[in-house]
Amino acid sequence: MVTKMVQINLKTKDIHISNLAKLVSGPNAILYKDEDLLAYDCDGFTIKRHLPRAVIFPKDTHEVSQIVKYCAKHNLPFLARGAGTGLSGGAIPLNNEVIISLVRMKRLLEIDLENRRAVVEPGFVNLKLTNSISDKGYYYAPDPSSQYACTIGGNVAENAGGAHCLKYGVTTNHILGLEVVLPNGDIIEIGKNGIPDAPGYDLLGLLTGSEGTLGIVTKITVRILKNPEAKQTVLAYFDKIDDGSKAVSDIISSGIVPAALEMMDKTAIEGVEAAAFPVGHPKDIEAVLLIEVDGITAGINDQINLILDVCQKRNVREVKAARDEAERGRWWANRKTGFGAMGAISPDYLVQDGVIPRSKLPEVLAKINQISEENGLRIANIFHAGDGNLHPLVLFDSRIPGETEKAIQAGSECLKACADVGGSITGEHGVGIEKKEEMRFVFHDHEIQAQTDIRDVFNPDYLLNAGKLFPAPGRCAEVKRELK
Amino acid sequence: MVTKMVQINLKTKDIHISNLAKLVSGPNAILYKDEDLLAYDCDGFTIKRHLPRAVIFPKDTHEVSQIVKYCAKHNLPFLARGAGTGLSGGAIPLNNEVIISLVRMKRLLEIDLENRRAVVEPGFVNLKLTNSISDKGYYYAPDPSSQYACTIGGNVAENAGGAHCLKYGVTTNHILGLEVVLPNGDIIEIGKNGIPDAPGYDLLGLLTGSEGTLGIVTKITVRILKNPEAKQTVLAYFDKIDDGSKAVSDIISSGIVPAALEMMDKTAIEGVEAAAFPVGHPKDIEAVLLIEVDGITAGINDQINLILDVCQKRNVREVKAARDEAERGRWWANRKTGFGAMGAISPDYLVQDGVIPRSKLPEVLAKINQISEENGLRIANIFHAGDGNLHPLVLFDSRIPGETEKAIQAGSECLKACADVGGSITGEHGVGIEKKEEMRFVFHDHEIQAQTDIRDVFNPDYLLNAGKLFPAPGRCAEVKRELK
Repeated sequence: MVTKMVQINLKTKDIHISNLAKLVSGPNAILYKDEDLLAYDCDGFTIKRHLPRAVIFPKDTHEVSQIVKYCAKHNLPFLARGAGTGLSGGAIPLNNEVIISLVRMKRLLEIDLENRRAVVEPGFVNLKLTNSISDKGYYYAPDPSSQYACTIGGNVAENAGGAHCLKYGVTTNHILGLEVVLPNGDIIEIGKNGIPDAPGYDLLGLLTGSEGTLGIVTKITVRILKNPEAKQTVLAYFDKIDDGSKAVSDIISSGIVPAALEMMDKTAIEGVEAAAFPVGHPKDIEAVLLIEVDGITAGINDQINLILDVCQKRNVREVKAARDEAERGRWWANRKTGFGAMGAISPDYLVQDGVIPRSKLPEVLAKINQISEENGLRIANIFHAGDGNLHPLVLFDSRIPGETEKAIQAGSECLKACADVGGSITGEHGVGIEKKEEMRFVFHDHEIQAQTDIRDVFNPDYLLNAGKLFPAPGRCAEVKRELK
Repeated sequence: MVTKMVQINLKTKDIHISNLAKLVSGPNAILYKDEDLLAYDCDGFTIKRHLPRAVIFPKDTHEVSQIVKYCAKHNLPFLARGAGTGLSGGAIPLNNEVIISLVRMKRLLEIDLENRRAVVEPGFVNLKLTNSISDKGYYYAPDPSSQYACTIGGNVAENAGGAHCLKYGVTTNHILGLEVVLPNGDIIEIGKNGIPDAPGYDLLGLLTGSEGTLGIVTKITVRILKNPEAKQTVLAYFDKIDDGSKAVSDIISSGIVPAALEMMDKTAIEGVEAAAFPVGHPKDIEAVLLIEVDGITAGINDQINLILDVCQKRNVREVKAARDEAERGRWWANRKTGFGAMGAISPDYLVQDGVIPRSKLPEVLAKINQISEENGLRIANIFHAGDGNLHPLVLFDSRIPGETEKAIQAGSECLKACADVGGSITGEHGVGIEKKEEMRFVFHDHEIQAQTDIRDVFNPDYLLNAGKLFPAPGRCAEVKRELK
């Protein structure tokens, strides 16, 4: 592969920046001035900020490999970044990293409908994939709420979920192959040609969700699915949140696997109704369920009727079905912009991401309510109820001294509540820098060690995305660079 | 945990055997005489045989850990074994290993219907799980043809598939948590409490399918599913195998995901009709498809009608639906005993296990036919057509000098044909010792190295199940013990 070298006259005394600039082609392929770097000092997790050394924009795998080799040779910390929508701080340059931004690598390389797969570059935006194939009757299933902006490379790093992952699984269930630049600059292909269940160790699974600590994904083969023949979406309003929780459990127990089964509590409803996409939810209810079923036309009504029965047994106040695709779209916009909607009722909010066995929903929601009262902070709940993936949103005002810390503490207590009932501290947002300490809620030291040992195989000099994901210092350079 | 120590008066001069015997409780907990060891010199892959040093039968995790610690301390090679039904030689003691048999650890520890999971010990037989919960309306999805005998621990090691994995996924998609004894004797828990998508690296995925080279699984949390409300099973007979192949592609393209979509060719039909479970397949056809759909009652007929349309467009000779559960059972017995049925038409057979993109079915089946002719050996095909997972069965007679080698060669050529169209060398049987060299068809040296580096993290002294899965010697003790 031949890369056109463009000599740029950089006004910098940093020799590494000058040298790195020679490895990428095209205009504006490197940023290094403080005013340009400011936009890269955090991602969707805005509570901690650090400036990178530079931000570099390779156009292909070869350029990524060259940059990585340069950083490895000169002992420069580096990390990869997509759209920066991550919610746990995985792309924050804690160590003044060189950020390798993959937004220029945004091509849709191949669509293979016959074998149900597509190949994309990491900077390709999630929703664009479905938009590119929907006229042919296909779609890409993982649908994080940020799908209009987030990139598939970032989705792979975080093993992103989404509302429809209840039925269709999270990102890892839809990745068939990866091309990866390792921290030494070597390029490997995993799950070649999109044949899943490849021999050898499951490196696909290992890389997916490794939060950018094992390698940089430069090409992704994903599974695409045929559009369901029919779908139906309903809203169910409950006076009592406990009834809503129990309805969730009952629906799953009935044998139906809804495409999505979302829940919002009273505070969340107040937020979404005050924000950009209100849909007229009653404000005096304690819970709304947004339930979607899909499949072949003949079976849809049976599923809906079963769900109606369950809801009625749980004292539902009202159930209504979407009259058309437009109404369905409005309901989903109301739900998917829910986190941001908290801005309408609070100066700041912190979103958390715990997972619990579904049967523990009433217990944990009560506990979150208690944490809210004890900390004197409102907590809204918007979540993927069907798979027990909670998103407590701690509302706070960062202008009030001490309140940010209190919000972080309340968020951590929510995760502890999840871990205590046999759950976990993240369903889809990742650990990043946000939940490093909370890893101790679910892992013993030697279990964390088993994982950092694996990291050290891939990332022995610990130059790639150091200080993320694990609480303990590794045995490598991390000790030196551990956060102040 | 307290283990009852039973002092057994062993007639052996092997001090290690005497010492190991003290670590396990109960009668007959260790075998060491040659006549007893003979039953453990191979598994379902019978072409290579080696005697173990001993076979030891721990009753719980603590005993496994003690045995492993003893082996690690005294540098004794060891490996774990379940029912020994594996087809790639993963449990063959190439290095005179101490075999740790897990058949005494066969308890069903927990059933949690509300959260759809069950906890089993590794020696629990696959089919028994479904049998234990079917009266409550649930089942365990992965259904290898050996499910009446194979154990779930072995299924995890091999990431076993099965006919119904087309719709429901292979073993790795149904494993929620593992307790694992590492090669140093440490015990770790992964995916605690059966919460999937745990934070940190996907060790669950890494361990699942690692063919017993990274650790010994001692407890398994699996996902259980609600029985489908209805299912329907049909047989479709095609005069031309090409038409059958194209029907497979068309069915998948239509958007239906059948629960199972199996194919047998003319030679395979000759075998199954001559064996224990004939069902009256016509002998002059080139292909039969066994198609099963499931779901809610209302939709089943629509799915079947769509499949009928597709088959008719592809010149099907006859389609018939199972009249009742008994007939369905007979059809599945006919299919699931298909490998063994080859014994009715050939003294020996070698089963292979390649994966291809579905669109390449006609091309690869033609190539297999050519390999058959060139080697002068009949090859039957019984396979999971829906997911492109081929099982060429090379028929041969080991009494004819040179024919075994020729069969191995033909099997390898079939895998090459799969790799050449962008496929893979194993779908569900694993690599073991059988396909080590064929790993080179799909991986470059540095890609294999990335995997053996991971193995060395878990298994640094390479005492656990050495000489399996990878072609190249590792950097550890393997070099010393590499096969003659």
